[in-house]
Parts: sequence; C-alpha cells; structure tokens
Amino acid sequence: MSDRILDFLRRRKSDGPCVVVDLDIVRENYAAFAGALPDTSVFYAAKANPAPEILNLLAELGSSFDCASVGEIEMVLATGADASRISYGNTIKKERDIARAYALGVRLFAVDSVEEVEKIARAAAGARVFCRVLCDGVGAEWPLSRKFGCEPAMASDVLEHAHRLGLEAYGVSFHVGSQQANLGAWDLALAMAADVFGEMSRRGIELKMVNMGGGFPTRYLKDVPGVPSYGEAIFQSLTRHFGNRLPATIIEPGRGMVGNAGVIEAEVVLISRKSAEDPIRWVYLDIGKFHGLAETMDEAIRYPIRTPKDGDQTAPCVLAGPTCDSVDVLYEKTPYELPLSLAIGDKVLIEACGAYTTTYSTVGFNGFAPLASHVI
Amino acid sequence: MSDRILDFLRRRKSDGPCVVVDLDIVRENYAAFAGALPDTSVFYAAKANPAPEILNLLAELGSSFDCASVGEIEMVLATGADASRISYGNTIKKERDIARAYALGVRLFAVDSVEEVEKIARAAAGARVFCRVLCDGVGAEWPLSRKFGCEPAMASDVLEHAHRLGLEAYGVSFHVGSQQANLGAWDLALAMAADVFGEMSRRGIELKMVNMGGGFPTRYLKDVPGVPSYGEAIFQSLTRHFGNRLPATIIEPGRGMVGNAGVIEAEVVLISRKSAEDPIRWVYLDIGKFHGLAETMDEAIRYPIRTPKDGDQTAPCVLAGPTCDSVDVLYEKTPYELPLSLAIGDKVLIEACGAYTTTYSTVGFNGFAPLASHVI
Repeated sequence: MSDRILDFLRRRKSDGPCVVVDLDIVRENYAAFAGALPDTSVFYAAKANPAPEILNLLAELGSSFDCASVGEIEMVLATGADASRISYGNTIKKERDIARAYALGVRLFAVDSVEEVEKIARAAAGARVFCRVLCDGVGAEWPLSRKFGCEPAMASDVLEHAHRLGLEAYGVSFHVGSQQANLGAWDLALAMAADVFGEMSRRGIELKMVNMGGGFPTRYLKDVPGVPSYGEAIFQSLTRHFGNRLPATIIEPGRGMVGNAGVIEAEVVLISRKSAEDPIRWVYLDIGKFHGLAETMDEAIRYPIRTPKDGDQTAPCVLAGPTCDSVDVLYEKTPYELPLSLAIGDKVLIEACGAYTTTYSTVGFNGFAPLASHVI
Repeated sequence: MSDRILDFLRRRKSDGPCVVVDLDIVRENYAAFAGALPDTSVFYAAKANPAPEILNLLAELGSSFDCASVGEIEMVLATGADASRISYGNTIKKERDIARAYALGVRLFAVDSVEEVEKIARAAAGARVFCRVLCDGVGAEWPLSRKFGCEPAMASDVLEHAHRLGLEAYGVSFHVGSQQANLGAWDLALAMAADVFGEMSRRGIELKMVNMGGGFPTRYLKDVPGVPSYGEAIFQSLTRHFGNRLPATIIEPGRGMVGNAGVIEAEVVLISRKSAEDPIRWVYLDIGKFHGLAETMDEAIRYPIRTPKDGDQTAPCVLAGPTCDSVDVLYEKTPYELPLSLAIGDKVLIEACGAYTTTYSTVGFNGFAPLASHVI
C-alpha cells in the first residue's frame, strides 16, 4: 500500500468505488523482472490491465507486449511501441484478425493446432509461430484448464506443419498456471520444452525460442516467493535442460507486473444478520463480483482488506457485493475476519487489485457503473 | 426463434457476435404474465435486460419495474413511466441512494434488516417497505444463496421496527430461486408469507402486499411449465393461505419476460484437438463467459445452439470462448453435441439469450468489445 495511493484517495472528490494504480510500483516490478532474468524478454500480458498509462510506462521502459486480440494490439501500438515488440499470444484467432495484425506489423503468433497454423500461413505469410504445449499447472492457485495448448507429441507436428507452409517454426510456449507459487513448475515445463526442441532438431528444424508464459504471483494474504527466486530457479532449469545452447526466452507477467500496484477503495453499504441468533454478520460492500472482484469466484483469490477499525476485536463475516444477484458473494465458504466495530459507511481498502479488476468489470450490471480507474 | 430475428441477421452488415431481441416476443410474454395473474401487478426486473427499447415497450404496455439501483431507476424514468410504478427492490442500498430515489419519487423499498429500515426512515420518510424473507429455493436451477432476506421470525421484527419509525409496513417478499420449474415452490413461500401476515396482525399491524418475486423460467434445452400453469398454481396457493382476504400481489419476471426473446449470433473461430488421439473436439466461438455467456458458469444454463449443419451426424465437443482465460470454457464437464461437419467460420445461433447477457458482459476483457445488442 503506497502513500501516493493513500494521498490520492484522501483528496479525491468523486464518489463510489474505484481502483487506484501506482505507476511507481509497476516501474519497480518491471525492474525486478528485467533484473532477475537479464537475458529474457519481458512481454507484459496486456489483458491484466491495459490502462493506457500502464502501457505507456512499460513501452517507455522497454517492455514488449503479449496481446490477446487486435483490440489489445491497437492499444499497444497507440503507445508508439513498434509492432516488433508484440506477440499475438492468443491461440484462438479469426483469420481476418490475423490478417489485420499482420497488416499492423505483427510477426509473432501463438498456435496450438494445425488448423490455426493454416490460417496464419494464409493470412501472415512468413511469420514466426510458437506452439503452446499443455502443462499440468500443479501448485498454481488457479490451475489452467486444457483450453490452451496441445500435447507435446502433437506440438512437433504442428510446428513441422508450419515449417512446411513457409512459416518460421520459432519455438514453444507453456503456462504453468496463474499465481504459481511452486518454483519447480517451470522446471517440469522447461524439460518438456527441451524435448520438443530435440524432436524438432531430429526432424531437421532448429527452434530458437521458449516462451515461459506468466503465472508469476502477486502477494495477496499469503507470502509468495520473490521475483529473484523465480529468476534463479528458471535460469538453473534452462541450463539443466538446454545446456550451453540456451534458447531466446520470453516471460509474460501480467498479475506479477501490476497486481500489487493497485488498491480498490470500497464502502460498507450494509451490515446485518439473517436472524436474531445468527452468529455471522453479513457485510455488503459497494463493489462485488460484477464490478471488479470477479476473481473471488470460488473464493480463489483472497484479497487483503484494510479497514479504519483495524486492531479492534474481529469476528467472521460473510462478505458480499451490492447487486441483486445471489452469486455476488465474495467470501462465504471461508468467512472473512473483520472488526466487530466496522460500521455502515466505513471505507475499506482492498489490496493487490491492480490486475484483472477493471477489465473483468461488467458494463453496468444492475445499473451500477463499471469500476472507475485512476492511474497515478 | 423468430423469423424477424433471422431476417435481421441475414441483412446485418456489422461484424462480430451480437444479441438480437425481438420485441414482439416480449409483448407476448407480458400479455402471458398479465393474463395468467390478472390481479397481480407485473414489475419487470430491469436487471435482466435494461435495453431502452425493452423498457419503453413495457412502460407502454402498463408494466411496473423492479429496480436494483438509482441507475436503473433513472433508466425506467427515462421511458416516461411515473415513479409510482417503481420498486427499489435491492435490500442493500446506500442511504444517499435511498435519498436520491425518494427525491425522484420512488416510495416503495425492499428491506431485510433493521439497519436498512433505519436508513429508509431517515432518507425516505413515510415510504412503504416490504421485508424480504428467506426461502429455500428447492427445485430452482439456480437456488439462491442466503444473501437476500431474513428468517421469517425476524421479518416481523423488521416490519414492526419500520412501523415504529413512521414507515408503512407494507408487506413481504420472497424469491423462490431463478429458473424455478417446481410450481410447489410458490406454495411453501406463500404459506410462510401468510404466517408473517398473521404475526403482524397479532401485533396490530395489517400488511397489504405480497411480492412473489421472479424465478419464472425460460425454455432452454429442457421443457418448462408455461406461464398459465404458474398463474393457476399461484392463485390456488394464494387462496389456500389467505382465504378471501387476498393481499395485493406483485411478480417480478426478468428472465421469464425477455429470456426467449433474444438470440446470439456467434462465429466458430477454431475447431481443434489436443492430441492426435483426442476423442473430443474443442470448438471455440467468438463469444464466451466474458462477453455475454456468463450464465454458463458451472454449466448452470445450457443454451440451445443451432448450426448451419444441423441434421448431420454429431459428436461431443468442449465449447469455449475466445479469450486467453482458461475459465472461459462454456461446456466441458458435460460436452455439447455438435455436427461433425461444423467448420471454422460457420455462424451459430444461441437461443434464449435475451436475459442476463448484455449486462453480464465485461467492458472489454482481452480487448474484445462488449456484446453488441440490437432490439428489433
């Protein structure tokens, strides 16, 4: 929690919940990633928070960008960054979107199937492609589904197909799962990447790049390893599996780059009980699942919350959002400890909200405006 | 699926996924609710789809409105409807929002706690309040959490408190759960409502109104009872529990009013497999959980999907959205049967998408625009 954010909130005139992102923290995070893996290119995952001020800062610092759509590509180009710093990292693209990205100068594309390779061969002749490989995600707070990536055995066929169609079979990518606290996860994935390199080499095609994806955690309630620990573990694994022929490498931090840079200020709308004997209070905020806190889904992410009554005696409560929607409950299975003295009208600060909040907000469910955002 | 919608889609020039809502079907649905329960006031739950054309039509037809926020109240007032036709049905309201609603002419408010009653007594002197009572929701496809409502025993205390503070203790409300196919659910809830009326009468306060909420289903893949069956069952229960002193009654259809009036047109972006031996295809659409199909969460709602290849041999597939987010998968636990001949670039029609699609859409996650909406 930075003093700059607290200052901003003290002075702001506007009403309603908002997120405030401190660019100084983003700058520190970028430096940490760049320093921990000096030979690796940082591609910021724009989807985590594509606020223009954040993209501008990262462009200025020298970051590259992982984009999920033509919309995101256009946002990045608006910073003045060259298209050579963009990876179109979505494995699911319309052929006409590939063509638009190519026309905008993008030359690096993700694939995980021969069907996608064929679209790229038609719409982006000669471009570089990397194949995403399935990875089991053990240790991640949000293990990924099998939505992205293919089995390693198929990856070689996909890349060979790309080569045959005149594309540059450039490398492989994986994603170890979001908020990954297990340093060993990258080692398993890199072993698998090295296997694909070996198989491709046997087929006469030399891959050059490993995209190690995202998954770098931000600190919520539990401590997580620091970026230097990740850097060291990853470098050791790279050396172990690739020897002295290290490939070019990419990382795609999103949450790790901006998560801890943002704070949401919200207001307590109601505190009540369901019956006279109810041991648990219900605390309703003016923000919930539909206006920024979607990642509380299944109570996956447990945000640290500060109140003006911190230090007073606490008791468990169910925490919920303001909409007329029964799924708009943040923490119920594991109630949240909050001060008994917390009162209606109190402002609370929800920490580590810089990533996956503004973009997950609905357009205005229940007539409440989307999450307001201030980048300072 | 109406011919008007198919005609519109055939002629539209714009690109990308969209929902098209046919006002003729909304008109029919309103007539069905009004006809099935002629002595009951229909309060359309604006949150289901607050498109101005829908609100205008319903205002013209004589509907009243259930609003979740000042934002929705303003949308309804923009139709020209009088504030006397509005219920501020959210039990979680900021005191300054209550004051704004009161200033706009709203005089009917939902509560489920003494804390909320006190806000209303301060900000909306003399207004009518109804107390929402917890209801177990057995038989609903989406049983509600305990987020809204209080135990019946507490409801009487809440209403008595309102009376004591100069508000009109007007009645009770309940919600049997969304997409409720069990006609008996209303009977249990009405029995409970009658108990509260009896208890209040013993305390010298005569309640006048029962708000029977929403929950009326729309047809997805399974057949559901028609509106007349609901009307008949509810009328019988009212008579059974209230005898010849029937209270004023309100229903709040949302999904039941607009669900079957809307169709989403989407495009197949990619069809692929995870390995050469994978028995299941992955079919990726250009719309998913973050741009309109949020109600596929936990695969709760299974939308009917039409393809240009219907009639051809089918096989199961996993259906997913276009974003770089692993939770953006629509049907995986129970794969969806789609034609084997379905191809990349085919357009599919997702039926019964008139409710809870546009408003659940994110502001632009992954750089994809929010769901486009056309009301015809």
